[in-house]
Order: sequence, then structure tokens, then C-alpha cells
Amino acid sequence: MKEATYIHGYSNEESLRLHLQANVLESIIHNDSIFPNNSRILEAGCGVGAQTRILASKNPKSNFISVDVSEDSVREAKRIVDKTNISNVEIKQADIYKLPFKSETFDSVIVCFVLEHLNNPVQALTELKRVLKKGGSLMAIEGDHGSAFFHPASKYANDAINSQIQLQKLNGGDANIGRKLFPLFQAINLEYISISPKIVYVDPTKPKLAEDFLKNTFTAMIEGVRENAIQNRIIKKQIFEKGIMDLNQIIESKGSFSYTFFKGVGIKK
Amino acid sequence: MKEATYIHGYSNEESLRLHLQANVLESIIHNDSIFPNNSRILEAGCGVGAQTRILASKNPKSNFISVDVSEDSVREAKRIVDKTNISNVEIKQADIYKLPFKSETFDSVIVCFVLEHLNNPVQALTELKRVLKKGGSLMAIEGDHGSAFFHPASKYANDAINSQIQLQKLNGGDANIGRKLFPLFQAINLEYISISPKIVYVDPTKPKLAEDFLKNTFTAMIEGVRENAIQNRIIKKQIFEKGIMDLNQIIESKGSFSYTFFKGVGIKK
Repeated sequence: MKEATYIHGYSNEESLRLHLQANVLESIIHNDSIFPNNSRILEAGCGVGAQTRILASKNPKSNFISVDVSEDSVREAKRIVDKTNISNVEIKQADIYKLPFKSETFDSVIVCFVLEHLNNPVQALTELKRVLKKGGSLMAIEGDHGSAFFHPASKYANDAINSQIQLQKLNGGDANIGRKLFPLFQAINLEYISISPKIVYVDPTKPKLAEDFLKNTFTAMIEGVRENAIQNRIIKKQIFEKGIMDLNQIIESKGSFSYTFFKGVGIKK
Repeated sequence: MKEATYIHGYSNEESLRLHLQANVLESIIHNDSIFPNNSRILEAGCGVGAQTRILASKNPKSNFISVDVSEDSVREAKRIVDKTNISNVEIKQADIYKLPFKSETFDSVIVCFVLEHLNNPVQALTELKRVLKKGGSLMAIEGDHGSAFFHPASKYANDAINSQIQLQKLNGGDANIGRKLFPLFQAINLEYISISPKIVYVDPTKPKLAEDFLKNTFTAMIEGVRENAIQNRIIKKQIFEKGIMDLNQIIESKGSFSYTFFKGVGIKK
């Protein structure tokens, strides 16, 4: 069985980062994550429930089943859903490659920040399509670390970001998967495919976004691979640290930072 | 006197490319280029009038003075304005570093795809600010070639794009200036600065945008530096040609291409 390798790990810190990230990105990536009332929706790879919370609140008259392969994540997602009194979500442990659902069960299927971590995204998408009703919609949201660019220029910051990209590749994932949503959707023969870029731009006129997205979401995510990237000799400690410092000084330096997410929707024939 | 070096040259082909580019980008970069009636507006660096046409048509009750340093471009811009029956524009030859206008003459000043070609953008912006009334708005629109990313990956295509960036640098310009609009605006002490990214995303579901933007605007622009970049030994001919070929095959390969423009607005205190 192909296991998803989640390179960011399962620490409490990472869980907090994921919830923060979900809040920051809500208006950017979920503004149009709206489904008809009474939809039966599968969220695959829900992790600690960071997106689940948002999707379920935005669609109170739809019913979600959110699954994840990790037992720990499922436990945490259940805790979050109970704590926030969300009643339209059922959380289950399940493998995205081998879902415990009959074919054509769901009106819509969502994957958010999941495909990037998989060894075989086409196989996972094929399985997601199997459980989707004919005419149902598949929605995928993914980042693309190769889309990050900033001022002032820093070779160290580029190296630190690239170390994350390389580590993810080493683990069978793809940190630059956002730009590939179109061919992935086409590979499983969806129709009416529509891919939208969602760019996040930060400069000193946006101090909250700088704090929440650039520092606590993006840079924190890069920082999260520190030990792993250094141990795997992908990058030297001094270079990594300097890179993180440079990313953290972009706003002080009156610079800017841009990053693009991609949201794809397609219909099962 | 510091001369602007326009690295794309002044051929008829380049003039056609600029007009095509302006049409493609109208809805992307000029959707909000709207000024109050009776505004007196300076467009600095109007070139062959590609943006002039669009700006003047979108703001029929404002009056434009559009200037460029190149005599040839000014002649061509006049021809275009006459041909298209635009009556709210006066075209003049003038140096952006030394404008033939009294201080505080204009309600708004626009520069579009100009700062990237200048040796000293801050000096030009300072001069633009001089002729702007207090409380008037300065608008700048610039691309950023470092923002381009695509699938399938091609080292050759990256090299071809980078050769353009290097050639522009060699000529004293900056092809990655889009991300620097915030610090540039701050350097001349504007207030209420607001910078917006305008991302263009192309995949096979958008054949017209692929043709008009990716092929006839972006790739054609890179192709335009072929002789110069090869003569200056920035890139080898075979690599450049392979890079252009790869850019031209993105859509056939069911891939995608993204590019980000930046639009900045700030107010003179």
C-alpha cells in the first residue's frame, strides 16, 4: 500500500500552524467553496480538520464525511469538530487510495493540500472519482512553492525554500503541484475543468497578512523541515538559518512576497 | 542625460506585439484604470500608444497628455490616435527625467511598462511626482519576469527567460521590477500606497489567452531579444531556440503557464 508521507510531521505546533493557515486563507481559497443544500460531500485527507471546520461552517445544510489516513489526525479532527459544535461532519479513518465507500456515493469530493504529499496523485484522484456520482464535482486546492518570489532577493531564502521542495520530492511528494492541476484533472478524464490561481501578495501595508501568512504560515512551514532537510544533507544549517532570517526580514526591509495557490474544479462525466 | 534603453527595439513587429499585448491585457490590468471626469492625466512613456488608446477610450471625459522620449514612437502614437479618432489625447516628445511641465500640473500620472526599462526609476518617479498635484494619484503598472512559472518544467525555457532578465539588467533596466513597486513608491514618499498583483494563468481550457498572451505576448517578447542575448554571449543559440520551442509547446503538452503583473497606486501628500 502506498502511504501518504506528510513531511511536516504531526506535532502540536504543526497542528496550530495548520489551523492558523486555514483561517488566513479562508477568504482567499474558500470564498467560492459553496455547495448546494443537502449535498453529500467527501473531504479526503482532512488532517487535523483545519479545512473541515471552514467548509462545514460555510455549507451548514450539506453533510460532510471527512477522512484521513492518520489515526492521530482523525482523533484531533474529531476533537475540533466536537469543540466547535459542528454537527454536519462525520470524521473517519480511511486510506485515500482505498476508500471504504461504494462507487458513486458523493455529490462532491474535496481535496485540499493533500495531492502534494502523495506518491501517486493520479491513483488517488481515480479513487476519488470512483466514489463521486456522475455529474458530481471534484475540487482540489494545492499550493505551489515554486510560485514564491520576493524582494529583497536572497539566495539563502531561495535555498531554504528549495530544500523543502527537494525534501518533499525525496518523500515522493511534489511541492510544485499547483501548476499541474490541469494535467492531473485531465489524466482522470474530468470535464468542464476550470483552474483558478489565487495569489497572495504581502507588503508592509498589510501587517496582519504579513504576520499570519508570510511569517506564521509560509515561513513557519519552511522552518518545519529544518531538522529533516539538514539531516538529509539537502541544505547546510547556516544557509537554512540565514534563509529563514531573510524571509522574516522581508517586511522590515519594506519588501514584498508573493505566493500562488491553485484551485481546480472538474465534473465526472 | 540618462536615456531609457528600450531593449525590445522599435521594429514594426514590436509595435504590433505591443498593441496585441495591450488588447489582451486590457481586462486584466486596466479594469480599474478609471479617473474622475475632467481629470488632467499625464501618461509618461507612452511608446507607440498601445496603452494610450485603451486609457483614453476608458476615460472619454478626461484629458490625456502622453509623452515618450523616442521620436519614432511619438510619430507612431500620433498616427494611432488619429486613426482611431481619439480626441482626448495630446502626444508629445519629452524626457521622463525632465518633463516640460510646471510643477503640480496633473491630477493623475500613469506609467505602464516603463520603469522596468529605466536606469534610475526613483529619479523618474520623483520627476513624475513633481508634475503631480498635491492629493493627486500616481499609477504604475509593471510586469515581473521572475514571476513566470510553468509546466512541463524546462531548463531551456528558464534559461531563455533569464537571458531576457540579464540583458535588461545589462542595459540598466530591471525585468523583475513588479515586486519592487512598493519600495519604489515609498522611496518617493507617496501615501496610501496600494499594490495589487494581477496574475495571468493559461492552460488548454483557454486557447485564446494561450495564443494572445503566452505565444504572442510573452514568448514573442522573449524571442525579441534573441539576437541581442546571443551576441552578448548571455545564452547559446541552441539553448535559446530550445527554450522558445518549449514555451511554445506548453499548451500542446497540456501544461500551464502563470505570470504576474503588479499595479500600484499612491497619493502625493
